[in-house]
Amino acid sequence: MKNIIFTFKDGSPKYKQIYEQFKLFIEQGDIRTDEQLPTIRQLAESLQVSRNTTLMAYDQLVAEGYIRGEGRKGYFVNELEPALFQQGTAPRNEQQTESTTPVLVNFRADAIDQAHFPLKAWRRIANRILTLQESFQYGDPFGEVCLREQLAAYLFQSRGVKANAEAIIIGSSTQQMLIHLGHILKEDFPSVIVEDPGYDGAREAFQFHRLHFETLPVYETGADFSQLGQMQSRLAYVTPSHQSPIGVSMSIQQRQMLVHWANEIQGYIIEDDYDSEFRYTQRPFPALASIDAQRVIYLGNFSKCFLPGIRLSYMVLPQPLLNRYKDRFRHFESTASLLNQLTMAKFMEEGEWSRHIKRMRLIYRRKMQHLAAGLKNEFKENISIIGEQSGLYLLVKVHMEHSEEWLIKQASSYGVKVCPTSLYVVNNYSVRPIIKLGFSSLSHEEIQLGVQLLKKAWS
Amino acid sequence: MKNIIFTFKDGSPKYKQIYEQFKLFIEQGDIRTDEQLPTIRQLAESLQVSRNTTLMAYDQLVAEGYIRGEGRKGYFVNELEPALFQQGTAPRNEQQTESTTPVLVNFRADAIDQAHFPLKAWRRIANRILTLQESFQYGDPFGEVCLREQLAAYLFQSRGVKANAEAIIIGSSTQQMLIHLGHILKEDFPSVIVEDPGYDGAREAFQFHRLHFETLPVYETGADFSQLGQMQSRLAYVTPSHQSPIGVSMSIQQRQMLVHWANEIQGYIIEDDYDSEFRYTQRPFPALASIDAQRVIYLGNFSKCFLPGIRLSYMVLPQPLLNRYKDRFRHFESTASLLNQLTMAKFMEEGEWSRHIKRMRLIYRRKMQHLAAGLKNEFKENISIIGEQSGLYLLVKVHMEHSEEWLIKQASSYGVKVCPTSLYVVNNYSVRPIIKLGFSSLSHEEIQLGVQLLKKAWS
Repeated sequence: MKNIIFTFKDGSPKYKQIYEQFKLFIEQGDIRTDEQLPTIRQLAESLQVSRNTTLMAYDQLVAEGYIRGEGRKGYFVNELEPALFQQGTAPRNEQQTESTTPVLVNFRADAIDQAHFPLKAWRRIANRILTLQESFQYGDPFGEVCLREQLAAYLFQSRGVKANAEAIIIGSSTQQMLIHLGHILKEDFPSVIVEDPGYDGAREAFQFHRLHFETLPVYETGADFSQLGQMQSRLAYVTPSHQSPIGVSMSIQQRQMLVHWANEIQGYIIEDDYDSEFRYTQRPFPALASIDAQRVIYLGNFSKCFLPGIRLSYMVLPQPLLNRYKDRFRHFESTASLLNQLTMAKFMEEGEWSRHIKRMRLIYRRKMQHLAAGLKNEFKENISIIGEQSGLYLLVKVHMEHSEEWLIKQASSYGVKVCPTSLYVVNNYSVRPIIKLGFSSLSHEEIQLGVQLLKKAWS
Repeated sequence: MKNIIFTFKDGSPKYKQIYEQFKLFIEQGDIRTDEQLPTIRQLAESLQVSRNTTLMAYDQLVAEGYIRGEGRKGYFVNELEPALFQQGTAPRNEQQTESTTPVLVNFRADAIDQAHFPLKAWRRIANRILTLQESFQYGDPFGEVCLREQLAAYLFQSRGVKANAEAIIIGSSTQQMLIHLGHILKEDFPSVIVEDPGYDGAREAFQFHRLHFETLPVYETGADFSQLGQMQSRLAYVTPSHQSPIGVSMSIQQRQMLVHWANEIQGYIIEDDYDSEFRYTQRPFPALASIDAQRVIYLGNFSKCFLPGIRLSYMVLPQPLLNRYKDRFRHFESTASLLNQLTMAKFMEEGEWSRHIKRMRLIYRRKMQHLAAGLKNEFKENISIIGEQSGLYLLVKVHMEHSEEWLIKQASSYGVKVCPTSLYVVNNYSVRPIIKLGFSSLSHEEIQLGVQLLKKAWS
């Protein structure tokens, strides 16, 4: 690409001027599709600005789709239709534009690390799968046997769960599995115990079937089981290995108490084991289902550990429920992509999956440490950090006289998107607001920038 | 406590082996509650490992709650219920072996042509999609906007349906869409009119919601609408462009009559347009939804026209139902693979989709002609062929004194797999048995061999 020459004007931030200039170049075709851009460092040096400034400009261009980052390879221009920039009538867009400040750092919890995705191995296997005859047919209603066998081996080895391949059902998301489960459970189980705060998506699935809720309060110190014996429900939905959102793990005593309770009342525990692989201070804890497979419905998925867009989840059902489930759903096609199932089975078989998990555990651990250290450094005793030992996000309890709403708005006006936690709460509100910061999709530089901006925003 | 003796195995970290051994001791009651464990130093010396190794093992046990550290006093075992730990059995393998005669030719209707799949274009686009940032996030609950926009353009151009991208919902299969529809329709529509014979998978979805059935008889000459005015239902499920399984198409008069009926009673028609692109004698008929978008729920999918394993389907909803649908399902993640959605959107945008459809129409037409000619040649007036003008299968009505069961068994003993049609029937049985022959996945040679074997089998 030709030399980039800028004359900065006064009155507008430099990153914004860089962003606007690049946008114009791309729209006018001066920089062509797939052309590589200067690195953040190169551009900073040639324009004599800080790297932070060029990073902010590029981030904006990435967010709007003009360019893409390809990990260590650098930044490249995306394809664009030049025609669209003359007339503005094209199909209507649903997205709302809410805030005017561009998002510089998005502490989202619903994306994963792109730079270390095993692109090569996945492509190689996916491409091979497309040449197999079995890829051109309808699949098994309950999921492909090859994937179920790989999952059985993985669950035993990694999560301590002894499951027959036959007892595993493959679906496309945890919510979808919960809705399906609801169909076979709702008559015998009109109410369910949920953690408070807890995963709102699960509550939505139970609410879909009009189940009533009883709540199990969860604090930073752990869940409070003292009322369990008095509850009416015989069904409980829990996240024992990494409580969502508080991040605590159940001790072996709590696990046993829960299993004991379920046995006593002949009920079931739904264990959502959504991201247990990412534990940083110790090895991942064995699943609750490893203690008692007869009373635990085990749910897992590939959204956090691999890729949300793959839409693959699975559950292990105790025998009586398995029979009921198969009876109810045997006439229905699987909702999970056959191609993705076959590719994942091969990916696991070839050892790529366990390599991926190990690699990502390290990468996410470093990001978590970076974020936690940065926050502690900037905010000192004005915040406390919850759940830094595992998962793809941490919680920040803010010890200042601000509301959750104010903290989010204020961050937004500085270009930082952070997540609320009040939506997870049923009754058990914290006195101080708690903000959720997801880091999985951010680089170390972005995390650092985000923390600095938050410091400014909240001071 | 008794002496701890270890034999370390290869292949697993030593700290993990220590952790597992202690866990077992505790679970089996070999080390009792409140018993003191060796110190980190003692254990390290007696096992000849580093103190770091024993520390890591103890840390893990502490984190999971098996033991506790009491400062300088050392480590002690926590209370636990030994009864709960059972030994499991190793994962078992499923799979049954059924028939002894190997299948030489499978006239299956649930597979597609593999030889002419646009492997190169699809791979190219799928590989590119994996580099986009948006592929590493969760998608829109109702499907990606880019794919909905492509579908809107396609539906207008090819099926005459004027749909806003916003009114299109993307899912993973027709059955899944019907089950979702059932959730928003069942209260107002306790019964549904279905074609007889008709697609069993749709009946299963309605039965799932305990809807009652009224039947619309379908013959080789078309559907019989004479009883429509007397029916109680205000909801009808039909396949107007290519009736499943009979293969007839509704005339414009029948289509208008149906739309008129729905308007009169303020009901809805569910139009399943599953394979309408493959019409060989004329151009594909415009969809029923092109006549009246207010009373028709349009369903389409990519299983027949592209690849069943991609698990992508879509529907166009009239406004009142759209509102109800979005209200009911807005909290739930999409079940359709984001990767497949984005790839398909690009595939359509680049014109690959319309090229694919044109190419496959030609290829399937040749196969259909080959199969029909072969059958006529071998069987003469002993059979009649139904539905050779469209679709990926044809029906053979056998004018001989044989049952459907006998025809299938006999074919099987000659290595030919053919499909029954009785499972599509509610009441409207044909006097003569009708056999379904799918040809999409077979080569011309396989089709010829299959016909010859059938001739031997049925003579």
